[in-house]
Amino acid sequence: MSIRKRSKKAGLAPGTLIHMGRAKTGATRIDLVEYDESHLEARSVESIEQCLVKKPLPTVTWVNVDGLADLEVLRHFGSCYGIHPLVLEDILATDQRPKAADYGEYLYVVLKMITLDGESGELKSEQVSLVLGQNYLVSFQEGLEGDVFEQVRSRLNNEKARLRAMGPDFLLHALLDVIVDHYFLVLEEISDRIEDIEDELIDNPTTATVQAIYRLKRQLLFLHKAFWPLREAVSSLQRRDSQLIRDTTVIYLRDLYDHTVQVLDTLETLREMLSGMLDIYLSSVSNRLNEVMKVLTIIATIFMPLSFIVGLYGMNFKYMPELEWHYGYYMVLFLSALIGGGMLVYFKKRRWI
Amino acid sequence: MSIRKRSKKAGLAPGTLIHMGRAKTGATRIDLVEYDESHLEARSVESIEQCLVKKPLPTVTWVNVDGLADLEVLRHFGSCYGIHPLVLEDILATDQRPKAADYGEYLYVVLKMITLDGESGELKSEQVSLVLGQNYLVSFQEGLEGDVFEQVRSRLNNEKARLRAMGPDFLLHALLDVIVDHYFLVLEEISDRIEDIEDELIDNPTTATVQAIYRLKRQLLFLHKAFWPLREAVSSLQRRDSQLIRDTTVIYLRDLYDHTVQVLDTLETLREMLSGMLDIYLSSVSNRLNEVMKVLTIIATIFMPLSFIVGLYGMNFKYMPELEWHYGYYMVLFLSALIGGGMLVYFKKRRWI
Amino acid sequence: MSIRKRSKKAGLAPGTLIHMGRAKTGATRIDLVEYDESHLEARSVESIEQCLVKKPLPTVTWVNVDGLADLEVLRHFGSCYGIHPLVLEDILATDQRPKAADYGEYLYVVLKMITLDGESGELKSEQVSLVLGQNYLVSFQEGLEGDVFEQVRSRLNNEKARLRAMGPDFLLHALLDVIVDHYFLVLEEISDRIEDIEDELIDNPTTATVQAIYRLKRQLLFLHKAFWPLREAVSSLQRRDSQLIRDTTVIYLRDLYDHTVQVLDTLETLREMLSGMLDIYLSSVSNRLNEVMKVLTIIATIFMPLSFIVGLYGMNFKYMPELEWHYGYYMVLFLSALIGGGMLVYFKKRRWI
Amino acid sequence: MSIRKRSKKAGLAPGTLIHMGRAKTGATRIDLVEYDESHLEARSVESIEQCLVKKPLPTVTWVNVDGLADLEVLRHFGSCYGIHPLVLEDILATDQRPKAADYGEYLYVVLKMITLDGESGELKSEQVSLVLGQNYLVSFQEGLEGDVFEQVRSRLNNEKARLRAMGPDFLLHALLDVIVDHYFLVLEEISDRIEDIEDELIDNPTTATVQAIYRLKRQLLFLHKAFWPLREAVSSLQRRDSQLIRDTTVIYLRDLYDHTVQVLDTLETLREMLSGMLDIYLSSVSNRLNEVMKVLTIIATIFMPLSFIVGLYGMNFKYMPELEWHYGYYMVLFLSALIGGGMLVYFKKRRWI
Amino acid sequence: MSIRKRSKKAGLAPGTLIHMGRAKTGATRIDLVEYDESHLEARSVESIEQCLVKKPLPTVTWVNVDGLADLEVLRHFGSCYGIHPLVLEDILATDQRPKAADYGEYLYVVLKMITLDGESGELKSEQVSLVLGQNYLVSFQEGLEGDVFEQVRSRLNNEKARLRAMGPDFLLHALLDVIVDHYFLVLEEISDRIEDIEDELIDNPTTATVQAIYRLKRQLLFLHKAFWPLREAVSSLQRRDSQLIRDTTVIYLRDLYDHTVQVLDTLETLREMLSGMLDIYLSSVSNRLNEVMKVLTIIATIFMPLSFIVGLYGMNFKYMPELEWHYGYYMVLFLSALIGGGMLVYFKKRRWI
Repeated sequence: MSIRKRSKKAGLAPGTLIHMGRAKTGATRIDLVEYDESHLEARSVESIEQCLVKKPLPTVTWVNVDGLADLEVLRHFGSCYGIHPLVLEDILATDQRPKAADYGEYLYVVLKMITLDGESGELKSEQVSLVLGQNYLVSFQEGLEGDVFEQVRSRLNNEKARLRAMGPDFLLHALLDVIVDHYFLVLEEISDRIEDIEDELIDNPTTATVQAIYRLKRQLLFLHKAFWPLREAVSSLQRRDSQLIRDTTVIYLRDLYDHTVQVLDTLETLREMLSGMLDIYLSSVSNRLNEVMKVLTIIATIFMPLSFIVGLYGMNFKYMPELEWHYGYYMVLFLSALIGGGMLVYFKKRRWI
Repeated sequence: MSIRKRSKKAGLAPGTLIHMGRAKTGATRIDLVEYDESHLEARSVESIEQCLVKKPLPTVTWVNVDGLADLEVLRHFGSCYGIHPLVLEDILATDQRPKAADYGEYLYVVLKMITLDGESGELKSEQVSLVLGQNYLVSFQEGLEGDVFEQVRSRLNNEKARLRAMGPDFLLHALLDVIVDHYFLVLEEISDRIEDIEDELIDNPTTATVQAIYRLKRQLLFLHKAFWPLREAVSSLQRRDSQLIRDTTVIYLRDLYDHTVQVLDTLETLREMLSGMLDIYLSSVSNRLNEVMKVLTIIATIFMPLSFIVGLYGMNFKYMPELEWHYGYYMVLFLSALIGGGMLVYFKKRRWI
Repeated sequence: MSIRKRSKKAGLAPGTLIHMGRAKTGATRIDLVEYDESHLEARSVESIEQCLVKKPLPTVTWVNVDGLADLEVLRHFGSCYGIHPLVLEDILATDQRPKAADYGEYLYVVLKMITLDGESGELKSEQVSLVLGQNYLVSFQEGLEGDVFEQVRSRLNNEKARLRAMGPDFLLHALLDVIVDHYFLVLEEISDRIEDIEDELIDNPTTATVQAIYRLKRQLLFLHKAFWPLREAVSSLQRRDSQLIRDTTVIYLRDLYDHTVQVLDTLETLREMLSGMLDIYLSSVSNRLNEVMKVLTIIATIFMPLSFIVGLYGMNFKYMPELEWHYGYYMVLFLSALIGGGMLVYFKKRRWI
Repeated sequence: MSIRKRSKKAGLAPGTLIHMGRAKTGATRIDLVEYDESHLEARSVESIEQCLVKKPLPTVTWVNVDGLADLEVLRHFGSCYGIHPLVLEDILATDQRPKAADYGEYLYVVLKMITLDGESGELKSEQVSLVLGQNYLVSFQEGLEGDVFEQVRSRLNNEKARLRAMGPDFLLHALLDVIVDHYFLVLEEISDRIEDIEDELIDNPTTATVQAIYRLKRQLLFLHKAFWPLREAVSSLQRRDSQLIRDTTVIYLRDLYDHTVQVLDTLETLREMLSGMLDIYLSSVSNRLNEVMKVLTIIATIFMPLSFIVGLYGMNFKYMPELEWHYGYYMVLFLSALIGGGMLVYFKKRRWI
Repeated sequence: MSIRKRSKKAGLAPGTLIHMGRAKTGATRIDLVEYDESHLEARSVESIEQCLVKKPLPTVTWVNVDGLADLEVLRHFGSCYGIHPLVLEDILATDQRPKAADYGEYLYVVLKMITLDGESGELKSEQVSLVLGQNYLVSFQEGLEGDVFEQVRSRLNNEKARLRAMGPDFLLHALLDVIVDHYFLVLEEISDRIEDIEDELIDNPTTATVQAIYRLKRQLLFLHKAFWPLREAVSSLQRRDSQLIRDTTVIYLRDLYDHTVQVLDTLETLREMLSGMLDIYLSSVSNRLNEVMKVLTIIATIFMPLSFIVGLYGMNFKYMPELEWHYGYYMVLFLSALIGGGMLVYFKKRRWI
């Protein structure tokens, strides 16, 4: 969730390929799926050149690259498909703002894939770059630890799925859709935790509660930053006159756009709820302070005058007529009870107790 | 009022029909009304196919479907009328953002119907989907527990009502209008409660008061989220060049648009009032703390020096000349009164009492 | 200043005439003024039909209707002049948002007339509806208690006034102008009160001060809600290609538009001033708490150790050598003075006193 | 800095000339400058008619009117130059919002000239109206106490100045430029004072500090209100297709526009700095309260148990074995030191001291 | 980081050259680089006239001027290249708002170069002006202390660099890019410091922590002010139909635009994080106050009643039967333990301890 280091890039020529992600080590894994309505072939390949044998239409080629450590893969990809060096640079620079850019021959979409670590409750974000061509789609993922595309793969295996009958632009929609759906999952998780904290807030709020609120606030801030530009990107895809997006797909992209707006709405709602909770917390802290102070004041107001009285008759003056009185002691006891009781009545009247 | 679970949908093919609402069990109930200026026939039907016999113009067919548990109804509806699968999916996904979408042959409007449970004070929201065709209107409601359309039905029974003489687009307006009017009812309720809390705030504010303010704030937040997109939707209906909206209806939709703007205005006003109340509350809590502390300080400031004096003459030193004085004790009493009185004058001057 | 009840309207057919205002009883009073450059005739009439004899141009007819209780008046007006039922409904629904709507044959403007009750300091708002036709202007006022149009009437009586030589659109401008000017009057009043409260805030702020600030805040909120849409309405009038607005009047409407912007500016300034005052108040409350606590702490810090010392020598141990010392008592006195003085020096150094 | 009284204007016919400014008394002073590239003549004149002899081009006539008390001057000006009555009214109404309005034959610009009184630190604002015609510029100033135009006059005296060679539109730019530059001067002053307060805030903040912050906030609010609309006005001048603005001047107006944006930027920055300072102040007040309370608590926590112990052995029971012990007194002293020291260690550990 | 003094400029003719920067003394240093794809020549020159010998295309001339103290350099530059006096004035006025202005023959870009002083943590800002012509680029820097262009120079030395093969518009992009990249570096620094403060906030927050937060807030405010207008400037460059920007460069400018948006995003995120931290701080201060007050109240509530009891039996009344009891003293001890223990149980139950 912190800011990625761009320092090493400062001043380099644009288009210089430098890996900025976290997972520097580890192999780069390339998966290839080729399909049309009747056939589907999926295999792992060694190098990206093997994927680049262009198949005749309507066969769709989906190349999924996991891990960005191997710069050679990117260079080959760039030179074979004629991808602009700035796009290659963007794929590597894993702190990209989500966007969709039309380069005529191909369309470049970059966004964040979000998952929530169940145990630590930490958000994990991984950059996904999608390059859509006439009959291919290449997806680049930052990490190797798995992705959210499993369901798309199983839909592809189903021969009757609409996905099989349509072009790579529909595959693009499917991948974007599943990523956006995962934002919903994360927001549901966060919403559950907000409800937990809410109960805590009423029962027994502590400083840990505030820190939890604050941590959630930052996660929402992070999600907002990662998601907000996506709305614009999807909106531009849906309006796109690019011939790469078929008319039948546009209606699905509009549906996707509705989903992105809904994610943002939910984000906004959760943020306002958290703000309200902070207010509740602060007002409950003030209230408890008030209560504590009332207890202190009541005790002091009752016992300070009494201590004065008993101190008075503890003085050692030679001539103190009350000391000689037979009922002097009982009078002091009575007076004390009177003062104490009177104070209690007074506090009752002021609604302090 | 919480976020609906979309989890089960993540990664499914778009257009997959899955029920997301709460009321999964229970039958789906279908009511059919067919009317023109001179005739009206209303009956319950078993299956939706029975409604789909297209009547010649100007007869208007209104099919009202209560409950979304029976997916077959939707499938039949979709295939007979040629409704896009994404629309069917949206009807089922009961966490839709309000919107109006033009599909050429038909118009799809989705929004939230709001009622306020009188006893618990809980908001209840139910999704209503309206599909407007050339000579039919199909309305889908999420729940079975009744709706706000009763008044529209009785207006339909009145042969002279303008509603009878006009097309299904006017019926669409009538249904939207009655839903928007119910937002006014809910806001009036909330406004009454705000006034109650306001009185409480001045008389005797407690933590419960803050929690009530907060609960109302969240209800308004929820209403805002449910209503805000409706303005855009109605605005698009009113501008619509769709041939499904007749010119005579447009002026009524403009009137409806004014109502939606007014609902939003009222929402905004109520939210600002609640914010102001929180400020009042916090400042009154600080004030009371101040008052409590003043009482404590006054008591302590008066009795601590006095206790010191009486303690002084309670010492057991052999040689303490004052102890021998005949009027020593009275001097202490006089001194105590002087100090106490002087303190009171001082506090009076500083306006503490 | 509260929300008007729309409940009774929920679900009724649009255009149903139901009175929503407060002044249900009392007669409806109709005043008629007919004028051109050389003649003027003003009289009260019994029923609105009498006003509706259309005079040849350039005679201007101004009908002013006070009170909306008599629904017949509206019905007649509507049928004679061909006014749309929705407009008639809007005239009656006295919680309208200010707006200007062009119906081709006539122009409908609705807004709030604001006065401030001198004694109670309560805002009074009354809805004014203006219907401008080719050669007539009909104004509807909610209440019977007088209006702000007196000055317009006296200008009409002056034969040389520009008002007499121009059409009903200029009369419309005159009425709008005088209503907007009254907002200035109200804002001046409120501004004076803010200055009073400001002085109070520095001299001796109490909870009543906060409540006064809060009341003013709500009044400004209410004024903002009542006025804000007027800017749009006047702006649309000034741009209007409606042939009902003559070119010579447009420049005056632009001037009126400048005034509305200025009212909004002033509203905004006053609101920000009030917010700043709340901050001042809160910080002064904290400061006084600080001061109170300092007094308490100083007293306690001086006298608690002293009380310990005198308590020490009040003990009844058999063997306490100091008690036998001749100057023991004076030593304690000296020690007490030393400790007390030392504490005071310490507090002086810490700038507590 | 308060709201000007418009009360007397309410309901008057538009274009009625009524003086609203503060300086009602005092003569109106008229200065005339006529210049072209080779000649310049400057003189005071008695009445405005003397200025109105139109000179042949390229001679530029600049008439500067100081003081608005003499309504005749305005009336003459209006009738000779064919100025619209609403413009004359605006010149007199000294609470105008800055604006630029194109009346074809002439251009009307109105804005606020700001100076800061060095001693009292009060802002002084004076309305300046500028009427630009084909070969003349008339400037109206509200007050008589001098202006900021001196430097423009001395530039005019310099024969080689670009100002001499160009038309009255360049003179308009020069006057606007010098007024905008004075906003910078005022903001620099305020910025210096903010820095002073900042030092105070860290050294020794008092209630006076908050009031100073608040006063500056209000001054910035006032400046913002007076300046904000000017941006729009200058922007419209620069885009103006009015033939009164020559092409060579447009580039200078664009430069002026940049300056207005910069003034607004600076205003915004200063406002945010002040807000931050209030936060600092409040948090430092809370901190000091915390500190004060810690001192009190430490003292009370140490001496209350000790007082109990010495009180215990001050009791007069017949049978109290400790009293007879030889080292009883020393034990109490030792115990007291132990308890006191233990408490101090405990507080040290909790980082209270 | 303070506001630069514009005072001396007020009222001067536009285009008057006055040095406003800080580094008034010191020589002005001029560096000249001439290059095309095959040749590169770099040298320092004495006066700017030496740079102005126009080379034939495609040779690119880059003149870098360090220090603005020598006004002659600017005057020569202006007259040789036909630069508008207002541009020369802008180059000198080192408080310019970033902008890009198209003057047809040349393009003027001005922006702030930011560095962060490692030790003091102070931001340093230096104005950079860039004038782009057909085959030259002139860059003006305010100070002499070095710049961020070193990497661009070394890229120029590399014969194979794309920079060598392209025109001066690509050099413009390279310089802008390296400046924007330095904003990232500064933001990373600030982000690191925010994380440090965050740890401090949880461990042991002090007033110094708030002041550090506040200082960072002001730095971000300053950065925002310096950077925000740059987005617009770069956006206008990228859309520019100026023939000075070649089509091949536009795609790089779009990339640069993405970077500026990202800088602004990051700025916004950091600002929200700081705001959240202030909330955390305030709530932790209130919490600690609460804790302190609880300790005080617990101590007082336990020992005040006990002190009353022991005081009671320290009274010197003649007739006090308890004093004679054999176990009186032990009863008091027992009673004290009972009261103290009871109080502790009570506080435990209220969760105070």
